[in-house]
Amino acid sequence: MHVLIIGAAGMVGRKLIGRLVEAGQIDGREVTALTLADVVAPERPAGFGGKVETLTVDLSAPATAETLIAGRPDLIFHLAAIVSGEAEADFDKGYRINLDGTRQLFDAIRLAGLASPYRPRVVFTSSIAVFGAPFPEKIGDEFFQTPLTSYGTQKAICELLLADYSRRGFFDGIGIRLPTICIRPGRPNKAASGFFSNILREPLNGEEAVLPVSPDVRHWFASPRAAVGFLMHAATLDLGRVGPRRSLNMPGLSTTVGEEIAALGRVAGERAVKLIRREPDETIIRIVDGWAQDFDPARAIALGFTADKSFDDIIRVHIEDELGGRIAA
Amino acid sequence: MHVLIIGAAGMVGRKLIGRLVEAGQIDGREVTALTLADVVAPERPAGFGGKVETLTVDLSAPATAETLIAGRPDLIFHLAAIVSGEAEADFDKGYRINLDGTRQLFDAIRLAGLASPYRPRVVFTSSIAVFGAPFPEKIGDEFFQTPLTSYGTQKAICELLLADYSRRGFFDGIGIRLPTICIRPGRPNKAASGFFSNILREPLNGEEAVLPVSPDVRHWFASPRAAVGFLMHAATLDLGRVGPRRSLNMPGLSTTVGEEIAALGRVAGERAVKLIRREPDETIIRIVDGWAQDFDPARAIALGFTADKSFDDIIRVHIEDELGGRIAA
Repeated sequence: MHVLIIGAAGMVGRKLIGRLVEAGQIDGREVTALTLADVVAPERPAGFGGKVETLTVDLSAPATAETLIAGRPDLIFHLAAIVSGEAEADFDKGYRINLDGTRQLFDAIRLAGLASPYRPRVVFTSSIAVFGAPFPEKIGDEFFQTPLTSYGTQKAICELLLADYSRRGFFDGIGIRLPTICIRPGRPNKAASGFFSNILREPLNGEEAVLPVSPDVRHWFASPRAAVGFLMHAATLDLGRVGPRRSLNMPGLSTTVGEEIAALGRVAGERAVKLIRREPDETIIRIVDGWAQDFDPARAIALGFTADKSFDDIIRVHIEDELGGRIAA
Repeated sequence: MHVLIIGAAGMVGRKLIGRLVEAGQIDGREVTALTLADVVAPERPAGFGGKVETLTVDLSAPATAETLIAGRPDLIFHLAAIVSGEAEADFDKGYRINLDGTRQLFDAIRLAGLASPYRPRVVFTSSIAVFGAPFPEKIGDEFFQTPLTSYGTQKAICELLLADYSRRGFFDGIGIRLPTICIRPGRPNKAASGFFSNILREPLNGEEAVLPVSPDVRHWFASPRAAVGFLMHAATLDLGRVGPRRSLNMPGLSTTVGEEIAALGRVAGERAVKLIRREPDETIIRIVDGWAQDFDPARAIALGFTADKSFDDIIRVHIEDELGGRIAA
């Protein structure tokens, strides 16, 4: 089985590659070749015996899509995107990469299939940013898409294309709407959502972290490990069971910042909690106020997608996967 | 006020032009110029004292969008589309006209506004084809978009673009999802929905008509006059009241074929009803089975959109507007 990963250098991409290499197979079919593409050079995975091709490409450039699928991969993970803040700041770039780049990929697959039979599985990472406030208490599987960012608009459009191209038989597509990933590894960044991870990751490293919102703020989370699990499950799921409604809200945990902090205290002790400094930021408070708080992802659960069981688990996953099992605090 | 109508040669476009010429103003502002565009040559309206420009153009051709808005119209009605059947039969053409053509129009407005301030009102006709079965008993304002045709996909994508471009301040957009227009004037055509009009229009002309489905089939209707009323209301509505969710289900009448026929009997007598011949068509039965039957268009009603009061009225509108008040039957 030949697997193409677009967005292979990103956090989720790298973890997915690790999982694929470790498993060596998907649904009993050996992974024999990996094509890894990103706008920055993807690393070659250690310990993989199959063929690896790495491509450093701009997804929206002419002929990139054709190059990506030239080897007719059986399974395509499309994880690449200009993130929310940048897509909002740079209108043209966001539409060019997130919409045109994705459409060019979908069309390259369609046209390849017109030349000779080709119908890969396409797993597309969408986002809960396809929804816009005001929300019901829990967002159900049939709630409408009214994004309030250009990023969310681009994701919602690609979901529609994914469904239509799948319905037409050009590929077997599935879209998964990821919760906010927590704990995001790496250094603190300026993303408005960064603090949800910062207030846990930094204290686990013995460092201070800033909390810019009230502990009452509620949001929707999954661990990086759960996100990779969603992708792996989406790669093999019987799409006959999914039907024409191809994009799904993934399961997750609806948790307040206060509950995050309580979990940190349980797992890492009060010393860790004391490293969180409250420093309200009106801009972040206003942005986060428009975000989804809770979901009822009944379809995804019925289809076998599983998320973290508790926020304590989310913290433990981070300690195991990122810290080698040890806490600094 | 300068008004641009794209799709000016179509049935709704021609009726809208008639209404604009008759009114001579919109919301108290005199209509001084009309730009009328379509892929077939639009007629010049009789009795209009202002400036008229007619353009025969392919919306998706390079620079068409720029040409259309060169005169910086204050109000743009975008009614043009490849219809459902053709967009399904010709994948490339449907996406080229319905998606790319619309996006090029939106981008031309955006880029014109970057050069010097320009923010027209854009009224976009969408469709209930943005929804796909299975449906709730009544489709509410927050039901999700899962189209089952390429046409519906293209309309849903354009709705998303309309909302994002409006949110960004590039124009003031509003999308209106028209019910099936009934009674559609003209000759019977092969559209799967044609019979809903044929079984009324043909008997009113003293001609036979074929009914391919059961009298129990329920669907969602508005008269051509109501459709023009929606467009006129959308042209002047305070969009501050609409907010970021820019596409609205229009009001209509949920009616069974049996109720249509009963109304025909009341308005035109049993002689007209006897001209309907039952001839089941499995293909049409299957297509129509996937269509929306009823809506709860609470938002549009609260915003002042009004539809026909009864199916008897829909028939009377046709007799007044198309038959000079006389019934042949």
